[in-house]
Amino acid sequence: METLHYHEEVKFMTSIRTDLALEARELYGQQNEDMAGIESESYKEHGIEITRVRITSPNGEKKVGKPMGNYITIEAAGIRERNPEFDEIVSQKLSDETKGLLDLNKNSNVLVVGLGNWNITPDSLGPKVVDRIMVTRHILELIPDQVDERVRAVCAIAPGVLGITGIETVEIIKGVVDRVKPDAVIVIDALASRKTHRIGTTIQIADSGITPGSGIGNKRMGINQETLGVKTIAIGVPMVVYAHTIGRDSLDIIIREFSNQATPGTEFYKMLKGMDQSQLDAMVNQVLSQDMGDLVVTPKEVDILIDDIARIISDGLNLALHDNISLEESRRFMH
Amino acid sequence: METLHYHEEVKFMTSIRTDLALEARELYGQQNEDMAGIESESYKEHGIEITRVRITSPNGEKKVGKPMGNYITIEAAGIRERNPEFDEIVSQKLSDETKGLLDLNKNSNVLVVGLGNWNITPDSLGPKVVDRIMVTRHILELIPDQVDERVRAVCAIAPGVLGITGIETVEIIKGVVDRVKPDAVIVIDALASRKTHRIGTTIQIADSGITPGSGIGNKRMGINQETLGVKTIAIGVPMVVYAHTIGRDSLDIIIREFSNQATPGTEFYKMLKGMDQSQLDAMVNQVLSQDMGDLVVTPKEVDILIDDIARIISDGLNLALHDNISLEESRRFMH
Amino acid sequence: METLHYHEEVKFMTSIRTDLALEARELYGQQNEDMAGIESESYKEHGIEITRVRITSPNGEKKVGKPMGNYITIEAAGIRERNPEFDEIVSQKLSDETKGLLDLNKNSNVLVVGLGNWNITPDSLGPKVVDRIMVTRHILELIPDQVDERVRAVCAIAPGVLGITGIETVEIIKGVVDRVKPDAVIVIDALASRKTHRIGTTIQIADSGITPGSGIGNKRMGINQETLGVKTIAIGVPMVVYAHTIGRDSLDIIIREFSNQATPGTEFYKMLKGMDQSQLDAMVNQVLSQDMGDLVVTPKEVDILIDDIARIISDGLNLALHDNISLEESRRFMH
Amino acid sequence: METLHYHEEVKFMTSIRTDLALEARELYGQQNEDMAGIESESYKEHGIEITRVRITSPNGEKKVGKPMGNYITIEAAGIRERNPEFDEIVSQKLSDETKGLLDLNKNSNVLVVGLGNWNITPDSLGPKVVDRIMVTRHILELIPDQVDERVRAVCAIAPGVLGITGIETVEIIKGVVDRVKPDAVIVIDALASRKTHRIGTTIQIADSGITPGSGIGNKRMGINQETLGVKTIAIGVPMVVYAHTIGRDSLDIIIREFSNQATPGTEFYKMLKGMDQSQLDAMVNQVLSQDMGDLVVTPKEVDILIDDIARIISDGLNLALHDNISLEESRRFMH
Repeated sequence: METLHYHEEVKFMTSIRTDLALEARELYGQQNEDMAGIESESYKEHGIEITRVRITSPNGEKKVGKPMGNYITIEAAGIRERNPEFDEIVSQKLSDETKGLLDLNKNSNVLVVGLGNWNITPDSLGPKVVDRIMVTRHILELIPDQVDERVRAVCAIAPGVLGITGIETVEIIKGVVDRVKPDAVIVIDALASRKTHRIGTTIQIADSGITPGSGIGNKRMGINQETLGVKTIAIGVPMVVYAHTIGRDSLDIIIREFSNQATPGTEFYKMLKGMDQSQLDAMVNQVLSQDMGDLVVTPKEVDILIDDIARIISDGLNLALHDNISLEESRRFMH
Repeated sequence: METLHYHEEVKFMTSIRTDLALEARELYGQQNEDMAGIESESYKEHGIEITRVRITSPNGEKKVGKPMGNYITIEAAGIRERNPEFDEIVSQKLSDETKGLLDLNKNSNVLVVGLGNWNITPDSLGPKVVDRIMVTRHILELIPDQVDERVRAVCAIAPGVLGITGIETVEIIKGVVDRVKPDAVIVIDALASRKTHRIGTTIQIADSGITPGSGIGNKRMGINQETLGVKTIAIGVPMVVYAHTIGRDSLDIIIREFSNQATPGTEFYKMLKGMDQSQLDAMVNQVLSQDMGDLVVTPKEVDILIDDIARIISDGLNLALHDNISLEESRRFMH
Repeated sequence: METLHYHEEVKFMTSIRTDLALEARELYGQQNEDMAGIESESYKEHGIEITRVRITSPNGEKKVGKPMGNYITIEAAGIRERNPEFDEIVSQKLSDETKGLLDLNKNSNVLVVGLGNWNITPDSLGPKVVDRIMVTRHILELIPDQVDERVRAVCAIAPGVLGITGIETVEIIKGVVDRVKPDAVIVIDALASRKTHRIGTTIQIADSGITPGSGIGNKRMGINQETLGVKTIAIGVPMVVYAHTIGRDSLDIIIREFSNQATPGTEFYKMLKGMDQSQLDAMVNQVLSQDMGDLVVTPKEVDILIDDIARIISDGLNLALHDNISLEESRRFMH
Repeated sequence: METLHYHEEVKFMTSIRTDLALEARELYGQQNEDMAGIESESYKEHGIEITRVRITSPNGEKKVGKPMGNYITIEAAGIRERNPEFDEIVSQKLSDETKGLLDLNKNSNVLVVGLGNWNITPDSLGPKVVDRIMVTRHILELIPDQVDERVRAVCAIAPGVLGITGIETVEIIKGVVDRVKPDAVIVIDALASRKTHRIGTTIQIADSGITPGSGIGNKRMGINQETLGVKTIAIGVPMVVYAHTIGRDSLDIIIREFSNQATPGTEFYKMLKGMDQSQLDAMVNQVLSQDMGDLVVTPKEVDILIDDIARIISDGLNLALHDNISLEESRRFMH
């Protein structure tokens, strides 16, 4: 109880630095009982955990700090083992879940947008996925007879980031959408999560779009159905965590341990209870200011992790965007 | 004379495979005397030859196969010597000539577009230039106080190519132009020329825009003032030649030599005169079909050549697009 | 006859700029009948042509300008079609032929050396192959129990080029060979050929080693059994041709055509016969000096061609160097 | 006092995961007073802090876990500001300190070795430095007349890592050293430190060589004067930290804070004193096992950080290895 109470306070102190609705909901749920406006269910299959979080009201939106909509999370820790068969199961799962949100018909055409900066490895997920997307729109327009009827019109861009283009990314996408008039837009981006084990292994699919840099606290214009005028699905994978978060989580764990061992009524117990936010903040800030600042970190192996997950996502999208295309066919097409 | 006559016929046979107005004009001029609709002047300075070709009428347009407009060519063979001072002179010259065509005022804002495919080294000039452009539009919008008054609003995109995006490049640019509303667009692209010595050493600046793949014979929609609705300057550098061209030029030279040595009235002379296009075509095709097909080649050192010329062009544009900015300042900005 | 006679003279004029024994032999054979010291046989299978040239005497060596030894050429034009099944057949063929030359036993260990400069795309074949080699030596030394008995000890280096290291490549290899003591060395390198259609589609396997830059006319120390002290197999693929060669071949073809059409005794015939080497040289040089210099060219698509052939060769070597390993197993190992 | 006592115990528990002698000494010094065998002095200049740690006895060696020798640390936090002038001061300082350890004469020749894996961004420091080293050995051998007398013979290799080559890196270097016979070897490597702020901003120069992966706890053969037979200087820059370390440091800070607030004799005080290593270990391990494993992290901006520091180090070495060469001259040489 006390621990919970303590955590309740902590909650307001910690700026929730995660792009995953799953984590935001969990964090909120650790300290609150009223989950109105937040629905959640999950199941496990082939070692993959699928969680569906649904934010159903403005109230729920406020609680978890994410816009209303569906958030499907695919947690596939096995990706780290680099087993091609497992990766294909993940791609298939991603395809199924994306199709569920997309609701395509025979003539739908889709624009895939790879967000992020190709010069910054942990931020290059979007452009890397786009590189492997089976792009067909021009073929269907120029030589329709040579294309299989299972193939839908797919086009793709990697618009770059504000610091490189000088243009808000949503403006570029909106400009392209106005000309290409797709039935749906899929945006891919690298995310920030609270847990290092999620890096490169967890995929979030959301129908509420995305706000570039939102996990990093910037206020920016969203890329979503409202701004683009068409259905917008966001697919993201955590590639970074805040160094802050790592330290913070370590502190939380030790305080919880101490609390569990303390006897109510003792000096120690009182002290733990008496520890107020500003005190804890001061400690956290001491670590931060000295060592980490606003540091965002990524695993040393990020080059490998990002190539693996980019392949899994592009495979999944190639399966999702055309009818009854096998991975082998899509790979041969890309070759 | 006969040689000229011969060449006149050859002219119609050879599809002129060059993106340089300079070469198209030269080729036409070798075989024709009526230069109405085609103006040309040139001068040399610091070892750099500047040629201005002006196509002034639909008739001139037809003669050289390039749209009406100004074509400024900077031939700077010295770039191959990799001397930083010489390169800066070329950048300065490019800046001067570009400014002459652009006609910017204090509040002009400019969109730089790097055409081409970043995965194909000889086609990556555009994206490489964009990488080094001093992009300022977002800074001027978000924190105008922190920007020097000499700085103009510049933004930049590398839209990719049709095979990668599935979207005509002009559509992407048009979409961005509609939202960003620049006063001018500068497009950068790798070109095909007839002469290998021009690869990486000749820069063409044209106010008639560009047609992607036009040097390669495709019919594609132009990127120009007409399609974009704003002044459009194209900056291009030959990075490839047709293998065909190399063989063809060799044949031309030897035939000319033979002709010079032949005595009028002799069997040989008659044979040369009697050689018709189809005969020559057959020979050329024999070489082509066996060895070269539609082969487009680039020097082995293309990775180095393209980095050098991308730096020279981006330096030149950074000088041209802002007022009294030194190269050192622009480089520090980019750092 | 005359044509042959003419060519015989041409032969001495043209410096034979090819790394392929196949082409050197062909060139020699076009103008000579005495093939003593040069054996050759070829067969075709699955659209792949295999030619075995054997230089058996110092006399043969002199004729074709290649050291004594076996030269197996795999011509697989179909590689350009990018069909994975066909590529696997080529890999299998490469494996078979390499095994034939290597003569490994159960405990043999092999050093694979990727020659060339990773910063110059057409010269990066060696390093790219090494990147995909199934390297096992350290695993067999450190944790032998975890390795399948079919696996041989394979190690690999990409030593760089003289201009980057300041050290003759053979010195670096020799240094490593002295410490690692492999039973065989396989060196991979990009070659120059006479024919553009061979770029990326022809593989030469030779047991006489290689001389870096030898196709480019430099005098350099060979990488072979004599210098390294162990059996040395060289695997090379043409990635460049001399621009010179393209022009030269065009001239040869037209002269041959003219010769065929000329009537013996006529002025023209006499002229063709009278054309001496210096005259032809002058013409060729005119083209060269104006346009090409010592220019070495590669197809525009070199980035794609080199990735494809690097994969085919590394697959072939992974099959050759271990016993009964499937391509799927080796790819999973590399993953 | 108690805190100190507590830390003394902690010390043995924590495996010191740092490659910096500076940090190892600091860590030891926090908990011990006997500094025999460890000398240390430091000064500050232009915002750069230089610390010289000298391990003078086997006893000192044991204390800090680093071999006897000189360790010079250049801490230059200002590198993060990306100011070219500041960077040049750091390069000059690196040059001065390296020259101090090298003791070159007019005819000395030096081998520079870039350790690390070019495919893993945070591990690519060595190869990136080697890419920018002014390599002269071959020029001095082949065309000595064309080289300035200020130029020494410098050669350079990037040997790769065990997982890529299958060969212990020291074996490759030793092989090359045996053939090239340099008077000194300089090895460059990315390091692990305890502090994230040191990433990309702190340079360690050591005359005791380096053990690849030693910061990561592997037992591997050293690269040093003993193994190579010539003077061996190691230059390293922290590019990663253990996620573990971040959590650990956070815990240490909070425990220290709690200790400071606890009253001797109270339950809490006793508890803190009674906290034994295994208890703390368990907590740390809980964090680790759940979240971080053996995770090594690097800042999100690693691509930029590593390019900057590679340039600073190569500039410094180019200054150090030749006499009175300016940075401008060395850059022109490299161009």
